[in-house]
Amino acid sequence: MFTRSVAHRIPLRAFKRWAHTTPTMNYRSVTEEDVAHFAKILAPSSVLSTLAPVSTPASELSIYNNDWMNKYHGKSTTVLRPKTTKEVSEIVKWCNERRIAIVPQGGNTGLVGGGVPIIDEVILNLGNMNKIRSFDPVSGIIVADSGCVLEAMSEYLVPHHYIMPLDLGAKGSCQIGGNVSTNAGGLRLLRYGSLHGSVLGLEVVLPDGTILDQLSTLRKDNTGYDLKQLFIGAEGTLGVVTGVSILSAPAPNASSNVMLALPKYENVLPLFREVKRQLSEILSAFEFIDRRAYELAVKHGQGRALNDEDVEGAECFVLVETSGGKREHDEEKLNTLLESLMEADEPLINTGVLSQSPLQFSQLWAIREGITEAVSKEGKAYKYDISIPVASFKTVVDTTRDHLQSKGLLRDDAVKHVVGYGHVGDGNLHLNIVAAEYSPEIESALEPFVYELVQSYKGSVSAEHGIGVMKTHALQYSKNATSIDLMRRIKTLFDPNGIMNPGKVLP
Amino acid sequence: MFTRSVAHRIPLRAFKRWAHTTPTMNYRSVTEEDVAHFAKILAPSSVLSTLAPVSTPASELSIYNNDWMNKYHGKSTTVLRPKTTKEVSEIVKWCNERRIAIVPQGGNTGLVGGGVPIIDEVILNLGNMNKIRSFDPVSGIIVADSGCVLEAMSEYLVPHHYIMPLDLGAKGSCQIGGNVSTNAGGLRLLRYGSLHGSVLGLEVVLPDGTILDQLSTLRKDNTGYDLKQLFIGAEGTLGVVTGVSILSAPAPNASSNVMLALPKYENVLPLFREVKRQLSEILSAFEFIDRRAYELAVKHGQGRALNDEDVEGAECFVLVETSGGKREHDEEKLNTLLESLMEADEPLINTGVLSQSPLQFSQLWAIREGITEAVSKEGKAYKYDISIPVASFKTVVDTTRDHLQSKGLLRDDAVKHVVGYGHVGDGNLHLNIVAAEYSPEIESALEPFVYELVQSYKGSVSAEHGIGVMKTHALQYSKNATSIDLMRRIKTLFDPNGIMNPGKVLP
Repeated sequence: MFTRSVAHRIPLRAFKRWAHTTPTMNYRSVTEEDVAHFAKILAPSSVLSTLAPVSTPASELSIYNNDWMNKYHGKSTTVLRPKTTKEVSEIVKWCNERRIAIVPQGGNTGLVGGGVPIIDEVILNLGNMNKIRSFDPVSGIIVADSGCVLEAMSEYLVPHHYIMPLDLGAKGSCQIGGNVSTNAGGLRLLRYGSLHGSVLGLEVVLPDGTILDQLSTLRKDNTGYDLKQLFIGAEGTLGVVTGVSILSAPAPNASSNVMLALPKYENVLPLFREVKRQLSEILSAFEFIDRRAYELAVKHGQGRALNDEDVEGAECFVLVETSGGKREHDEEKLNTLLESLMEADEPLINTGVLSQSPLQFSQLWAIREGITEAVSKEGKAYKYDISIPVASFKTVVDTTRDHLQSKGLLRDDAVKHVVGYGHVGDGNLHLNIVAAEYSPEIESALEPFVYELVQSYKGSVSAEHGIGVMKTHALQYSKNATSIDLMRRIKTLFDPNGIMNPGKVLP
Repeated sequence: MFTRSVAHRIPLRAFKRWAHTTPTMNYRSVTEEDVAHFAKILAPSSVLSTLAPVSTPASELSIYNNDWMNKYHGKSTTVLRPKTTKEVSEIVKWCNERRIAIVPQGGNTGLVGGGVPIIDEVILNLGNMNKIRSFDPVSGIIVADSGCVLEAMSEYLVPHHYIMPLDLGAKGSCQIGGNVSTNAGGLRLLRYGSLHGSVLGLEVVLPDGTILDQLSTLRKDNTGYDLKQLFIGAEGTLGVVTGVSILSAPAPNASSNVMLALPKYENVLPLFREVKRQLSEILSAFEFIDRRAYELAVKHGQGRALNDEDVEGAECFVLVETSGGKREHDEEKLNTLLESLMEADEPLINTGVLSQSPLQFSQLWAIREGITEAVSKEGKAYKYDISIPVASFKTVVDTTRDHLQSKGLLRDDAVKHVVGYGHVGDGNLHLNIVAAEYSPEIESALEPFVYELVQSYKGSVSAEHGIGVMKTHALQYSKNATSIDLMRRIKTLFDPNGIMNPGKVLP
């Protein structure tokens, strides 16, 4: 039953390719006996189930069964919200022995369906595990339950003059365990690096219920294989992250930003080099916005910060942010940068608008952050979150547009815009194709075209969103057969019964 | 034969503990037939063997069979120095099919014997693979053969205004593949983080000869398990790293340092907090030196940078380094810091000596870097490279000294000094016990005492040196049974025949 239901989501080609290694798995549905057991080992408020003896109304399970975009839908009868690692361990052990599938769930803010059930898995929601376990104000190392909300952790750190090394739009809902399990990137990656560097330790309940305690608070530890790394980005398919030890960063005392207008696309790369050279350690963001993306943001209510003169003749824009220890120093560096850019013989920029107040700082960011909303107001968007070498950003946007043109699809009632924006500093391009309506014709023109294009640059089909259930069929474009085979063997090693988040990550 | 020889290096207790899971392995020695095969697939200069048909004089193999400290000794008959990844693959495949053990070898600069043979493994020396494969001056991503010497990579980057994210004393000899395989820490970790964050991709020849190409040049890639992380710090036991993609950092324009004298040990932590807060993003080193370590450095020819007045009444010292984009800014920040420290009601420091020239900069560093040499001139040193919470540095040094005192060993003809120094910023303490002579009495007083002490702080018995062959018996003090069991299963998954660097890392 289950296997077939997963299979129908996977295009035939991809499915065939891996069918020979996909084990036949039979999961058991949760029974009243199971619910009675869970009710015995957990607090009453920790068990939601439409089954007796608990008999929760089905409507109360809806927020757990569906993702926030209402794109992925599960039919789980049972949601468990344990309060301790030991409870998680007991649940997992029970499920493993009975071949009941589990989907670990954090804040349910993912974009690829990794945290919602496919069929009727037990939903193991970590939201009740939300304590800060310890914080060392000297080292900046914070240890927390995996259900801690990212913003709550950030707020906890404020009086200590530290910040979390990651920041996301979803910070008010997303949980640190989910951040780790999806290897969340976000806005601070350019400055503070990925979670593979800043996560110092994890506590994980393995698929057989064993608690793997690697909750180290050490910055350096060279005693064997760094197993915790496997769980960072595994999207809950290798175990349930229950605790996280993470290195926070000293809070910057000052932040500034400037929006630069560029006469041509080709200047982005030399500009990035120059900005990195001059701003060095205070550079905290370098965001790219092409002209069409900018215009959409303005059209739909963002970006009154630049006047027409600033915009005129600009092919694209770059938002530069600095964060540093001393405002005067940072502003001096930014001013020197702007002067040297404007006074060059062949200036890389037409103009630059430097924020002069917290309000202006926010207004400049609003242009960049408003693109997502503007795109969705303009039409139906096909969104690709890809990593490619920075040098190829322009080519990928142009090639996609040309391809749609050659198919006769670049017209008002089909594809209206092909826009590019994103984190140049991280090599992460958001390629958005804005159409009047979703249509099979556009979709088949885009896929596998875009994935093959990404593959030709040895890029990633998912820079930061993960694979989840949405992109399992596209994994092959970024991971070769040797890698996928090894991933599968690792999965089998950790989870021989395949109970942990089946149908996710691996095709 | 082999198994027994390994076993004698492992204390009985540790050996017993793991004996039930240690597979009985029978490696084949290299034969003339094997050498003839290697001579056929490799260039003549790539094959050194005392066996026919090559018949190299045994003396020429000495530098490969012995480590640089002359502490670990192998009896390999054959050294292979391939020039391409394909050659590495063919060698490994041949050896795997014939159950010939392999020790991958980089610059042979390790401290724990991880890169030298135990018996007569084939030595796979990567020194002939020393090409920079690519460099992107925009992103700063450099891709290189694993045999590239670290210093050569650093020099390659100079004209591009980038620096390698790691720096080691051994940089003139160590190779990037060895750095990755040992997860080398070094002097820049505080600033640029660990290799788990800065290594973006690897090319690895797996133990069956398959080439795993994950040589990504992407900063962000969330497409499944991050397998490359397993090879970072695996010391060549899971495969042979043949290529490395790594993120270099923009070169700082200026560096300064200051030596601070502290009236008491307890001030180190509040000082570290204050320095982090004030210097923020320009702080690049915070090194701790206790009084006895300082005096040994001075006694043996280092450290004329401080006068008697500066030193008087100091219980310990801290060397602070800054690296930043603009000298005036950095010096202003350092001066402000020093003023605020001196003018405080209860000053954390007695005095601070700020370097005023490149010469003085080097002289201050010479005190810190001279300790190792001074300790070896003073007597026989038992060296422990441990990670513990920063707050416990003093306690661990004191507890060790008290313990030796209680055993009656703290006397001129036994233990002369117990000194502590190291990277406070990384939580990495070098605990050195300086004795008149090595003696079984001192050794049994120290071990497992020190390891158990480290374990009681959930610390690491090897912060940066690795496990190699030296510390396999001590692994259990930093890794619990669940972790070691998983490590063993990962090892078996990758290397079922156990040919890759046997006897290293896992007990």
